[in-house]
Amino acid sequence: MKKFSIGVLGAGTWGMALARMLTVSGNDVQVWSAIEAEVDNLSATRVHPNLPGMVIPQELRFTKSIEEVCTGKDVLLFAVPSVFVRATAAKARPYIRSGQIIVDVAKGIEPDTLYTMTEILADELSHENGPRAVRLVALSGPTHAEEVALDLPTTIVSASPDLEAAEVVQEVFSNTCMRVYTNTDIKGVELSGAMKNVIALGVGISTGLGYGDNARAALITRGIAEIARLGVAMGCNVQTFAGLAGIGDLIVTATSMHSRNNRAGILIGKGESPEQAVKEVGMVVEGINALPAAMELAEKYHVEMPIAQTVNAIVKEGMSASDALRNLMSRDRKSEMPQGYESV
Amino acid sequence: MKKFSIGVLGAGTWGMALARMLTVSGNDVQVWSAIEAEVDNLSATRVHPNLPGMVIPQELRFTKSIEEVCTGKDVLLFAVPSVFVRATAAKARPYIRSGQIIVDVAKGIEPDTLYTMTEILADELSHENGPRAVRLVALSGPTHAEEVALDLPTTIVSASPDLEAAEVVQEVFSNTCMRVYTNTDIKGVELSGAMKNVIALGVGISTGLGYGDNARAALITRGIAEIARLGVAMGCNVQTFAGLAGIGDLIVTATSMHSRNNRAGILIGKGESPEQAVKEVGMVVEGINALPAAMELAEKYHVEMPIAQTVNAIVKEGMSASDALRNLMSRDRKSEMPQGYESV
Repeated sequence: MKKFSIGVLGAGTWGMALARMLTVSGNDVQVWSAIEAEVDNLSATRVHPNLPGMVIPQELRFTKSIEEVCTGKDVLLFAVPSVFVRATAAKARPYIRSGQIIVDVAKGIEPDTLYTMTEILADELSHENGPRAVRLVALSGPTHAEEVALDLPTTIVSASPDLEAAEVVQEVFSNTCMRVYTNTDIKGVELSGAMKNVIALGVGISTGLGYGDNARAALITRGIAEIARLGVAMGCNVQTFAGLAGIGDLIVTATSMHSRNNRAGILIGKGESPEQAVKEVGMVVEGINALPAAMELAEKYHVEMPIAQTVNAIVKEGMSASDALRNLMSRDRKSEMPQGYESV
Repeated sequence: MKKFSIGVLGAGTWGMALARMLTVSGNDVQVWSAIEAEVDNLSATRVHPNLPGMVIPQELRFTKSIEEVCTGKDVLLFAVPSVFVRATAAKARPYIRSGQIIVDVAKGIEPDTLYTMTEILADELSHENGPRAVRLVALSGPTHAEEVALDLPTTIVSASPDLEAAEVVQEVFSNTCMRVYTNTDIKGVELSGAMKNVIALGVGISTGLGYGDNARAALITRGIAEIARLGVAMGCNVQTFAGLAGIGDLIVTATSMHSRNNRAGILIGKGESPEQAVKEVGMVVEGINALPAAMELAEKYHVEMPIAQTVNAIVKEGMSASDALRNLMSRDRKSEMPQGYESV
């Protein structure tokens, strides 16, 4: 197997879980973080505080220099939180070579621009002192970092309109524990990743209200259906939403207590205010942050998204959760799949 | 709201949960069972032994006469186990009127004929002394009987090529706790219901081997993909498999410890023989029973079904579960969605 040199930007749980995996499968990996203390700590202790069971191999190198991490690599992996993707790209821009393959694993939609993460990268790297024609790939799927850190079997999608780049990334990330599928519909893959947290929040609210597995399966199924409707209106391939980065990622997010969105939703369903719930979860709740973009996209593309709109009414407009979910159940009777996905 | 008269054939947990629901939503319901002691017991105690929390309302009537249950009803509900559908239809045949709307909730594929449940009904009722032109509807979705018994919110699909009949059934079963969607692809709905247990068994095996949520979400997602490939080859609508009776039902089955298939799979994954596992679960494990039909259909329609074939190799051919799942992970690298669903 060919070995690759890989630069990882970001040393959070997902970046580090992937960096370790790529190292033990024989690649040459270097990790950069904007937080210097994090670099010092990880390279000294060889343990990530949020992945205590994972040993960071000695061969995995760290750097505090963004120039160094970007230089001479076959593949760059952007693994910073979604809100830092633009700023990190701006910082890295002068050091990224033309034609560089760049993989993004952050998930989200930028408020205002409504850009996906690779669209932010394309935009930010296209400035005057940047590289020409980078090759962008989104890597997304049902992937708890905690399980990848332990070599538990995992599948993921390497998505790019540049199929050759997607296949290089497939080769880089494939090993006995990770099975990588390619998909050319990068927009559908990224949209799913950003929107799933809104649905997971709704599933949490349903659980918090005392509803059961039937309601959860219904919200997951109808939730991906409304994301798919939006995606189709935006030009994505409907099949992407039935795939690993679509329904697969939503299943893992909405059925796991690891998910902050699920946990925050449960608290809201039990009667806490969204502010209290966020405080109690103690971390960013991406589903709440994604609501404005979801509402804007639904309006812009004239798509009905009843579950996302219900979650928005509860979280942003103070509607009672039980009233809101009752409304959802008592809408006009429908066919499951009207032509062209345009209805609900 | 118009009230309906409904005859229910079968007094198992699902038949009784629906019979109670239809009664409390104002319909006139009569239940028949082939087991006379069951009729005596249910009408005396007003409690079903497997649904201890559910009170059977006094207005719900029972009968030991299949002629009586079939006579003068707007809708007949077949709720007997799949292996008894043909024999029950034969017994009911002389008493069913032409044009009768018949709803089936049993799930399965008949060995040898490879018929779905409504295909068995159509076949068996078409004999000389039977009715002409019955209107068959399949009702299927993510529906634990235990939750419907407690009025927890649930969604379900009313499927029939006869859309008018599907809409009558939608009206009959809709209430504040149950939301019913119509779908004209009855074959896709029934195929999903029959095949999901094979995948749920595979998910159980994965859990028994110590694999995690990532593997579970992957098996569910790729599992419905292979059922969809089979369905498309059989002329079904691919969208059905992304719906409530497809992925929705598979999610509820494969993520719940209520599921016998899931539990049996876990035991097999932990190293028990399939025979031991069935014994320990103590009830029919539909996923094991569905394997021969799944293998026959895959062969007949030339569809690759790697997950079902892996489950078959473990359960029927004694392959080690860990070897089999390792093979599944190390197959040739693939695109997620090749044209026409023909590959994997």
